[in-house]
Amino acid sequence: MDKVKPRTLSGFMELLPRQQVYFDDMSRRLRDSFSLYGFMPLDTPLMEAAEILLAKGGGETDKQIYTLRKGDVDLALRYELTASLAKYVAMNYGRLTFPFRRYEIGKVYRGERPQRGRFREFYQADIDIIGDGALDVLNEAEIPAVIYRCFMSLGLERFVIHINNRKALSGFFEIIGVGSAATDVMRIVDKLGKIGADKMSETLISDVGLSKAQTDELIGFISRDGDPFEVLDKYRGKSDLFDAGADELAAVRRHVAGLGVPDTHFTVDLSIARGLDYYTGTVYETMMTDHPEVGSICSGGRYDNLAEFYIDKKMPGVGISIGLSRLFYILQEQNLLNDSILTAPADVLIIPMTGDFSHAVALAASMREAGLRAQIYGEDKKLKVKISYADKLGIPFVAFLGEDEINSGSITVKDLSSGDQTTAAPGILIAGLTEKIKSLRGGKPIKEQQINAD
Amino acid sequence: MDKVKPRTLSGFMELLPRQQVYFDDMSRRLRDSFSLYGFMPLDTPLMEAAEILLAKGGGETDKQIYTLRKGDVDLALRYELTASLAKYVAMNYGRLTFPFRRYEIGKVYRGERPQRGRFREFYQADIDIIGDGALDVLNEAEIPAVIYRCFMSLGLERFVIHINNRKALSGFFEIIGVGSAATDVMRIVDKLGKIGADKMSETLISDVGLSKAQTDELIGFISRDGDPFEVLDKYRGKSDLFDAGADELAAVRRHVAGLGVPDTHFTVDLSIARGLDYYTGTVYETMMTDHPEVGSICSGGRYDNLAEFYIDKKMPGVGISIGLSRLFYILQEQNLLNDSILTAPADVLIIPMTGDFSHAVALAASMREAGLRAQIYGEDKKLKVKISYADKLGIPFVAFLGEDEINSGSITVKDLSSGDQTTAAPGILIAGLTEKIKSLRGGKPIKEQQINAD
Repeated sequence: MDKVKPRTLSGFMELLPRQQVYFDDMSRRLRDSFSLYGFMPLDTPLMEAAEILLAKGGGETDKQIYTLRKGDVDLALRYELTASLAKYVAMNYGRLTFPFRRYEIGKVYRGERPQRGRFREFYQADIDIIGDGALDVLNEAEIPAVIYRCFMSLGLERFVIHINNRKALSGFFEIIGVGSAATDVMRIVDKLGKIGADKMSETLISDVGLSKAQTDELIGFISRDGDPFEVLDKYRGKSDLFDAGADELAAVRRHVAGLGVPDTHFTVDLSIARGLDYYTGTVYETMMTDHPEVGSICSGGRYDNLAEFYIDKKMPGVGISIGLSRLFYILQEQNLLNDSILTAPADVLIIPMTGDFSHAVALAASMREAGLRAQIYGEDKKLKVKISYADKLGIPFVAFLGEDEINSGSITVKDLSSGDQTTAAPGILIAGLTEKIKSLRGGKPIKEQQINAD
Repeated sequence: MDKVKPRTLSGFMELLPRQQVYFDDMSRRLRDSFSLYGFMPLDTPLMEAAEILLAKGGGETDKQIYTLRKGDVDLALRYELTASLAKYVAMNYGRLTFPFRRYEIGKVYRGERPQRGRFREFYQADIDIIGDGALDVLNEAEIPAVIYRCFMSLGLERFVIHINNRKALSGFFEIIGVGSAATDVMRIVDKLGKIGADKMSETLISDVGLSKAQTDELIGFISRDGDPFEVLDKYRGKSDLFDAGADELAAVRRHVAGLGVPDTHFTVDLSIARGLDYYTGTVYETMMTDHPEVGSICSGGRYDNLAEFYIDKKMPGVGISIGLSRLFYILQEQNLLNDSILTAPADVLIIPMTGDFSHAVALAASMREAGLRAQIYGEDKKLKVKISYADKLGIPFVAFLGEDEINSGSITVKDLSSGDQTTAAPGILIAGLTEKIKSLRGGKPIKEQQINAD
């Protein structure tokens, strides 16, 4: 028979089982963290009527959208989770309770040119809080607390959440007189990290027409030296918008600390702009301390109108998104996955040494009842092959059931890492194994290498 | 601004948050059950090159496949999980360890005509065990044990797993002399439950050309009255294939009992055929005791060649699939979801009664640290609205922080179901709440109504 060459599309992340265990562990920890802050799960379809996904228009994004046609309907695969959320909230407005906190961890699709670390199918993990008409700034302070817990629960410890406020930034632009060019300026400011202050100045002068004085003032404002609140104080009283933004930054700063995020992991950074036009309050970026080149691993902000394309209600919200597949790719590449966590599919491999499987079967049943993940190796192979099965998969314990064991009602358990071997009654061994496995299960999926001892 | 009407495509299940909690709980319990039996997680792309998904050809299924084109590649959305597994195993043959046990819970797509309870996007939860060259029958006995644990862990208790063996059935057809028509006969036998014995006889005589004697013998064989092993014994010694199948049924029966599946939930049923041609050993169907009209909620079987379209290796396997979205739809429709489980997004709603949120923020931090899911209601609304927020979402406890509480360093917690109100130091109340929430979280997502007291 002619064979079809088995292949996975380029740009589609498909993990080996061991890697998948890490990924699923991370995803589960994110869910648990989101839940702790009162977010509800949502799972919207991957496919929508094209008009729904394209409602807000998209320019560049449009071209990347996978579209298809079934019958007389134009369909599209979602390329982010926000449009689906907006549709959902508009559609279910009367059935939801606001503020509505939801998380969604799901796949999205972008037909980008495949390149290293960029995916065509990838997971996003989003949280949003949506208000009906209004939404208190307290919600903007909760977001960094969630981000902090998420990454700490994964075992990533060397990161800093940077926040800024778009009102403060826009207000500042008013004050220095670049009102109408604010959007363009913001887009260029956003590139500060990439292009540096000099190149940024040049671009602002040549492309947007700012004066040297304006540019210098801007650079002084967004500089990360010194206390941002002292910088903010210098401009107070000159623009209502600015003052509102500065007040929000102060409130968010205060509450974020109150929510338990330490100073080491949180900073007000007046250079953060976030390119997108629709942010209107606090904006967030999260940087890995040892890998600034990666850019932000969790970003978002406050917006004023989630669902304006679908419904005539003002629905302000605040949200962030973690590009989970991309984060996972980075962690792998940087060797930051924790090698010492248990990724084996089983805690114990039961190896029957006689043709009669009934004792192995009974043992497997008791082990599973005790919460141990147990497999029976029932294939007709040499003992070496059986043990190598456990070894290759990283199964930590092997239980042997030979004639001696069966006659004496005992089992022999071998710890494959230490080589220690114990023969005893099943009840005793199961209790011991349960304890040992509990400690093996304790680790977090990410283990940072403390490269810089700072 | 012109609005786009918010809508979700017909045939696409999109749940309200409370329902989603049930669905996710079910999905998590399935993962945990699969893990206990040594299955590893897998997450294959939803999209594949069309040639991969269509490798085995499909007749009816072909028409239902969503296809799209990007660049010069024909793409398709998967319509089941098996083709992806076959591709994966063929592609990663050298990197996997066999027998390879994997589970995958993922969305699949079928462009069917939408109708009640049929979905175009739906979840399947699959487990498979793949051998390299050979696979012991013990694996066929493990499958009902997994099914049993899965449904019990969900809280579904009134179901029976029916098994049969395709070798026994084919061998029986040999014995009564309907060898060449076996596939057609099998397909008709499969409909026994739907059309009844009389109609089945008629069809077998008129459509397949069986004699009255053959048909009577067949009906005697597949009849569910009496002990199936007595029926099997009557035909032993007349066909090697039959004997092999009867032996496998006996072994599976014995091991399934040994693995802890009670007689009430497991039966050998010689009428189970499973329409699909590729099953070659044990086949499975799972029926809800009170809802036979629903058909099988978990089916599968043993096959000989998983990946024959992609690779020149014999890879026998055994697997089952749960149509999770369809099962969820049935549970909802039959009112079988457990109303008493906690579906609220939070355990406690903290209501600050003054303009100063700092105490509420500190309280939320301590509660979350203690594992309580806490939300702060920070919106500027009347107290009635704040309490009604908790009420509507089913949040069981509300914590008030007024002037009195702040001055005395205490909090007041109200149990919304009993109306009981307590004022005490936060530490004491948090400990009490943690205990209460633990018991509220205990329930399983399915609560069967014991309609028949049999």
